[in-house]
This record gives sequence, C-alpha cells and structure tokens, in this order.
Amino acid sequence: MAKQVLPKGFLVSGVYCGIKRFNKDLGLIYSPFACKAAGVFTKNKVKAAPVIVAKETLNKGKPIHAVVVNSGNANCCTGRYGTRDAKRMINAVAENLGLKAANVYVASTGIIGKRLPVVKIVDAIPKAVKQLSEKGLFSVAKSILTTDRKIKVETEKFQIGSKKVTICGICKGAGMIQPDMATMLCFIMTDAKIDKDALKVSLNKSVQSSFNSITIDGDMSTNDCVLVLANGQAHNKVIKKDTKEFDIFMKHLSMVSFELAKAIIKDGEGATKFVSVHVKGAKTDRDAQTVSSAVASSLLVKTSMHGQDANWGRIASSVGASMAESVKQNKMEIFLDGVCFFRKGKFASPQREKISKVYKKRNINILVNLNTGKKEAKTWTCDLSKKYVEINSHYMT
Amino acid sequence: MAKQVLPKGFLVSGVYCGIKRFNKDLGLIYSPFACKAAGVFTKNKVKAAPVIVAKETLNKGKPIHAVVVNSGNANCCTGRYGTRDAKRMINAVAENLGLKAANVYVASTGIIGKRLPVVKIVDAIPKAVKQLSEKGLFSVAKSILTTDRKIKVETEKFQIGSKKVTICGICKGAGMIQPDMATMLCFIMTDAKIDKDALKVSLNKSVQSSFNSITIDGDMSTNDCVLVLANGQAHNKVIKKDTKEFDIFMKHLSMVSFELAKAIIKDGEGATKFVSVHVKGAKTDRDAQTVSSAVASSLLVKTSMHGQDANWGRIASSVGASMAESVKQNKMEIFLDGVCFFRKGKFASPQREKISKVYKKRNINILVNLNTGKKEAKTWTCDLSKKYVEINSHYMT
Repeated sequence: MAKQVLPKGFLVSGVYCGIKRFNKDLGLIYSPFACKAAGVFTKNKVKAAPVIVAKETLNKGKPIHAVVVNSGNANCCTGRYGTRDAKRMINAVAENLGLKAANVYVASTGIIGKRLPVVKIVDAIPKAVKQLSEKGLFSVAKSILTTDRKIKVETEKFQIGSKKVTICGICKGAGMIQPDMATMLCFIMTDAKIDKDALKVSLNKSVQSSFNSITIDGDMSTNDCVLVLANGQAHNKVIKKDTKEFDIFMKHLSMVSFELAKAIIKDGEGATKFVSVHVKGAKTDRDAQTVSSAVASSLLVKTSMHGQDANWGRIASSVGASMAESVKQNKMEIFLDGVCFFRKGKFASPQREKISKVYKKRNINILVNLNTGKKEAKTWTCDLSKKYVEINSHYMT
Repeated sequence: MAKQVLPKGFLVSGVYCGIKRFNKDLGLIYSPFACKAAGVFTKNKVKAAPVIVAKETLNKGKPIHAVVVNSGNANCCTGRYGTRDAKRMINAVAENLGLKAANVYVASTGIIGKRLPVVKIVDAIPKAVKQLSEKGLFSVAKSILTTDRKIKVETEKFQIGSKKVTICGICKGAGMIQPDMATMLCFIMTDAKIDKDALKVSLNKSVQSSFNSITIDGDMSTNDCVLVLANGQAHNKVIKKDTKEFDIFMKHLSMVSFELAKAIIKDGEGATKFVSVHVKGAKTDRDAQTVSSAVASSLLVKTSMHGQDANWGRIASSVGASMAESVKQNKMEIFLDGVCFFRKGKFASPQREKISKVYKKRNINILVNLNTGKKEAKTWTCDLSKKYVEINSHYMT
C-alpha cells in the first residue's frame, strides 16, 4: 500500500465546529489551481439540499477550487432552509478563499430532518481555512466520519509518461450501504491532467465496480456522493478517452475506489466478517448482478455468516429468491472458499472439518456458478451482527 | 374472534415422528369427502421437492382428500432423493387412508439441504392416521411450526343463504417472510361448496392482500405455499364467481388470511412491535406497493422502531430509496399514528411528548401520503431486534 499523501497542489483541513459533541465535523479541501471535476450522486428520490446544490454547481461546469463538507447533520428534509444553508456554507468558503460560489462544492452527512446549525459552520470556516495544509489528510478524513470506526484514505502513485501522478481519496461509509450508491461521501483528489469527459467516464466506471457493488444493509441514503477533482499539477500530457494513458489512470482510480469501498464494508456497522459474492455463468450481466446482490443482501445469509453457522442452504435459497432467469436449481453450484457445498440440486457433502474451517474465516468468498451462461458480477458485503441492531436502534438517542 | 373449530367433515392430527428433538413434527389433514383445492406457491427459483410434487398434484386436478406435512426438514436441495421422499410420504398416507396418490397433497418446512428422514415419517403415519380427530386442530397447528413461538389458527363462521359455513386456517411463519410469498405454510379448510374457479380466484385475491403484503426480513423461502381445501359439507348453493355469495366467501377467506398473516408478523423472529405501512396518493398501484414495501423492508426503519428512536428521517429516506416515480420530496407527507412528522419537504415539528408517545407504542401505523395520485397499498412488518440476529446466527448449531 502506498504511503497516504495528497496529490500536488491540494491543501486540506478538518476542524471541530460544534455539530457533533466532541469530534471534528467540518472538512475543507482546497486547490489554488483550477480543478476539473466529475461527480456521481444518490438516486434516492429524497435528496438532501447539499446534493441538489452540488449537482447544480457541477452542471454549471465552472472550475472547482474547494469542497466544504460537514458531518453530524445531513441537511436533508430541511425544507426551504436546506438549500439556503448549503449556499451559506459555500458563500462563506468563497469569501474566505477569494473564490466565486460556483467554484465551491458542498456536502453534508449525518442526521436527517434537523436544520443545519449553519452559523456554527460559517463561524468555523476561517479556522478551517487557516489550518489548510499539505499535511491535513488525516484531519479532513476524520472530519467527514459519522458512525465509522476508522478513517478511510487510499493513495495510488503511478507514472503517466515521465510524470509522477497521484490519486488520493477519502471517504466515509458505515451504515446504509447498498449498490446503486453505497451510502457515503467520497472525495478523490488527483494532480493528473485529464480532460473533463475522460474524468467523467473513468469515475462512472470505477464507481460501478466499487461503491455500487457493495452492500451493508440495503438502505440508500439521501446524501451519497462521489466527487473527483483533478488539478493538473502533475503536468502530464492531457489524458483523453480511449488512450493508453486513460487505461492507466482508470486502473489506478478503480484501485483507489475499490480499496475505499472495501474499507467501508470492513467498517460496516457491527461487521465482523468481509464477504465477497462472486456470481458467474449467468446468461446476462443483469442476472449476474441480481443474483450477487440478492445473496449479499440476504439477512439470513448475513446472520449465518455472523454466527459461523454452516447454513449454506440459505445461499441457495437467496439465489433462487433473486428470481433471475439464469437460475436453474439443478445446474447451479455453490462454493465457499473453493469448497463445493452445492451441486446437481443437492448438498455436495464436503468434509465436516472443511465446512467449519470455511465458516470460521474472517474473509469469506462465496462463488455461485449458475452454469447457464458466461456473464459474471461481484458484490461485497459484511455479516449482520447484534451490534448493527444496537447501533441503529439508538442513533438519535 | 370466533371460537377455533374445524369446518364440518375435516379430521386432523399432529404427532411426533422424530425429526425435531422434542416437538410434534408431523401433521395430517383429512376429509373423507372429496375436496376442491387451490394453491399458491413460492416463486423462488430454488423450489423444495414437496413444492414441485404438490404443484403436480394440484395440476392433475383430482379431488384432494388429505394433506401430509412435516416440520424440521424442508426436503429442499436434496437432489433426486427429494421428489422420491416426498412421494413416499404421499404413498404412505394414501395406503393408510385407502386413497390414491393423486388425492394427497404434501408439504415440508425446516432446514434446507439435509435429506429428509423419510423412514421416520412413514413409520409415524399409522399413528397420525389413528389420531385423526375433529379435536386435533391445535395439535396439527403445532406440528407445522419451526421457529414460531405460537400456534396460529384462525376461524370464520358465516352464512351462505340459510347454511352455516366455516373457514379455518392454520399456518406457520416466523423468519424469512416477505411479499411475493410470505415464507410460510398455510392450510385453509372450509366446508363451503364452491366451484374450482371461484376457489382459485378468491385464494389468489386474499393472498395478495395478506401473505403477500407482509415482510419480516425480506427473504423468500423455497417451501412457501398456501393451500385451500373445500369439501362442500356445508351443503350451501354452489358458490360461483361474480355473485353475492362469492363476495361473502371472499370477505371471510380474506379475514382468515389477514389474521394469520398478522399472527406471522407478531411472531416474527425477535419481533417486539407490529408496524403497518400505509402508502396512499401514489400515481400507480405498483408505485404504492414499491414504496410501502421499501419502507417496511428498511433495516434502518425497523431498527429505529425497535429502539423507539424517533429517527423518522429514515422513513423519508426509505420512501425516496424506493425510486418510485410517484415520490416528490416536497409533496409527500409522513404520519405516525396520526401525528404529522414530515410535510413540505421538512420535519413538521410535532410536540416532543407526541413523538415519544408514538414511538413507544407496540403497534405503530406509518402513513405516507405521496400526494401525487390516488392509488394506495399496505404492507405489514415488525421491528428488527438483536433477538432476530441471535436466532438466525445459530439456527443449525
């Protein structure tokens, strides 16, 4: 794993502004050099105000110079105050950094339905600006967390031609994670020089095989977003679509995204296991995704993983419950870490020791071969524990 | 609530055959008078052998005289043994009651993937036949249970013309409950005289608004089925579709189904609350169902209900996460037991005492008015507790 460092030309900070009881809750990302930007947002029909405002900002297409983000309050379901407060955050940053509102991107995460204590944020912005630094990476990563136990940072360094390029992402996740926008905030910074279209395409692709392929509890949040900023300070030849350079950039962006997505799963609320579900042999991509998502989302599968309870029949049942056309009971095979559990419509009777060994692992690989086609898909998830219920039964109180 | 009694001409028994460690695990329903029958089966692509065999039996269309059902083993994912063992159950019953195999219906519930101990069942069938009685209702209701804490029986008595008619159903549920086949076995007996088509239509309709509208954990089993048997011993005028008599029958069949579905929810694994989700004002029936199902299935909603944690924002978020076209953030309203929590895109700020009163109730009614159309739907569910995780982490062990 590369050392965690910011790409050239980025300054960041994370401070305490008073939304949370104790921890840092206000983050700032700044690049004096204009950034190309691309974003992916929640598909939830109920969208938080900052998501609406941030989408507008991106659509305007002006260069982005700063991102301001608070945790502890999602600024969602806050009525007409919502956009107003999000814009006040933007304006305060613009003012303090000598930017225009259109150069500033905003995000929030936390409790839904309480008005954002925007005055606290505005008051703390001068402090956040003052603390901007090349060394603030862990501070800003910390400031965006909610129920996460760990900060999540991932860096990739590589060459484009003779130039050294860095991609560094931070994210927050924990609960409410599911495909089609793993609930989270993710900010990826890079000093690569890349054209806008190439940046957009590479982000979309890397989100698909990372954040959109993980599930913790099947819930999708109102605030999800992934943003990538590229300030060009690596001074490489501009990366364009369908070039060798694009493939290199894409590969490393995907690695950053995937590692961050994995970190979210590993930090899933109450999670004790990392479960990978690989479906192959499906007739269509869609079927492969449907099945892998059905298995990864099944509470019965997740609780049996938690209890190390070799109830593999639940995997078979969840494959069937996906209702995917590609599923044929007598053709499909189920493997756990290479051990075949199900074949020809029945329990494959692996040795008892092998069964218990597989279920005791911390990382479990489920492979479902439908044997009806050639398409495949992967989904990553965690187990479901009492701790999850405990955390989520008393989030507000 | 009517006294729980069998309709005329039905004899039932529930005995212990040795699949479970201690409890009754073999049930028998018998009518010396030929029954019209209709059934609804799981849509899971992985189907247990008895489901496949029972569907064949129903498709043959011969009069049904008996139902044999075991608990403790689902006879699912048992390969070629599966159908063979299911048929051995049928043959043993046919032999002992002087019937043909085509007159006997079979069902199983329990663990997946272990071969059915069919010899134990076959050996116990003479005992089950011997114990057949008009008074065996609670015994047979008990014999079909798995993780259920309570037996589930519901009776309706009413008149068709001058004739007294009875409908009585038993079911098992608990875990793995979701729409499109609440996972369960349900056997409904009636002495009504009704034509086959009318019986089929009335069953389908009543399942839709009962068993298919409940969810516990979103999992769909491999063994679900609802069967209705009508032996005509009430000697009423034959009930046909689109008549007044049909409406009366339908109403009472729906009541039996709905009460049994409710009993399943109340007995949901680890459940401490009964939650009803009513969505109205949707543009289409499908949207209404999608939204009510999304709210009722959200783990975050269910854990907050469990913790009596007034995190109503999760309801708003799950409405949006349904992605239904009818959802407009600024039009929708959310009520809990008549108290408005959300309106005009924001928290409606009800009094603090009202909030905590609502969340403390054992029965919680969520009403979501989308205000974009005229369609509605209801889904019933329970909360998600640590007990659920506990039960399902150690089902096999």
